[in-house]
Amino acid sequence: MAKTRNVFVVMLRLLALGATLCATIVMATSHESTTFFGLSLEAKFQYTPALKVLVVVNAVVAAYSLLVLFISPNSRLSHFLVTTDVLVAILLVGALAAAGSVSYVGRKGNPHAGWLPICDQVRNYCNQVMWSLICAFTGVLAYTVIAVYGIHTVVHPLLT
Amino acid sequence: MAKTRNVFVVMLRLLALGATLCATIVMATSHESTTFFGLSLEAKFQYTPALKVLVVVNAVVAAYSLLVLFISPNSRLSHFLVTTDVLVAILLVGALAAAGSVSYVGRKGNPHAGWLPICDQVRNYCNQVMWSLICAFTGVLAYTVIAVYGIHTVVHPLLT
Repeated sequence: MAKTRNVFVVMLRLLALGATLCATIVMATSHESTTFFGLSLEAKFQYTPALKVLVVVNAVVAAYSLLVLFISPNSRLSHFLVTTDVLVAILLVGALAAAGSVSYVGRKGNPHAGWLPICDQVRNYCNQVMWSLICAFTGVLAYTVIAVYGIHTVVHPLLT
Repeated sequence: MAKTRNVFVVMLRLLALGATLCATIVMATSHESTTFFGLSLEAKFQYTPALKVLVVVNAVVAAYSLLVLFISPNSRLSHFLVTTDVLVAILLVGALAAAGSVSYVGRKGNPHAGWLPICDQVRNYCNQVMWSLICAFTGVLAYTVIAVYGIHTVVHPLLT
């Protein structure tokens, strides 16, 4: 039973590692130049602080996900992971929500504020950002399950 | 010792209740009309999806914070709060990051995307949004401490 549990958590951690690595790389390589009514328009993630935060946070969490794979589930240290996994989930959600929110403006614009959508002009860039957000969302889901499952395995014995 | 712990958690929950209620009310009442070069400009939170999400999430969490005050810390139900508190913290962070990210564009603009800042025209509206975000941030801090403290009190006996 404990072995099945450990395999499940390791699989989730590998999924989280892949997802956060994917989010980092796909966002970090997003770039497109185009001309629009004779004006040159360049889009890259560095121009938007929230997207830069997404890259940094996902890179850090990818490194964390790799490191914790080497911690034995029977070691005392593994108990601390319950807390750090929660903090990582919180960090990932914050980065994803901030980037997603700005990307939504990029796609839909906000006519009340006079902000026009840019995705019709830089379609490839926007698609790449969208794929990065999908990867980041997968990472968030994985870490939310890891966090809740971690709490459950600690709390459960106290309930039964 | 257990009593001091309970008082600490109740105080944090009261702080979270006040903060989320403040975030909801301050954002929900944010509204300003002005004229700019002869054009009338109206700013209200309903025009921005991320700000609407902030209002809804903080209102729901305020109701949750009130309800859980009536759960006895000795009841079996209180163990489940460790998990729900973590999920609430994750929800609050997501709402705050999304709203904060769009508000940042409102204040600073994004010249690369051709989005002009609007806060010079609707200064009172922007200040009110800022105060709402400060309240929401306080709620996030309170729930992060509640979540980590909740895990600690459950995990700690297993470590010693």
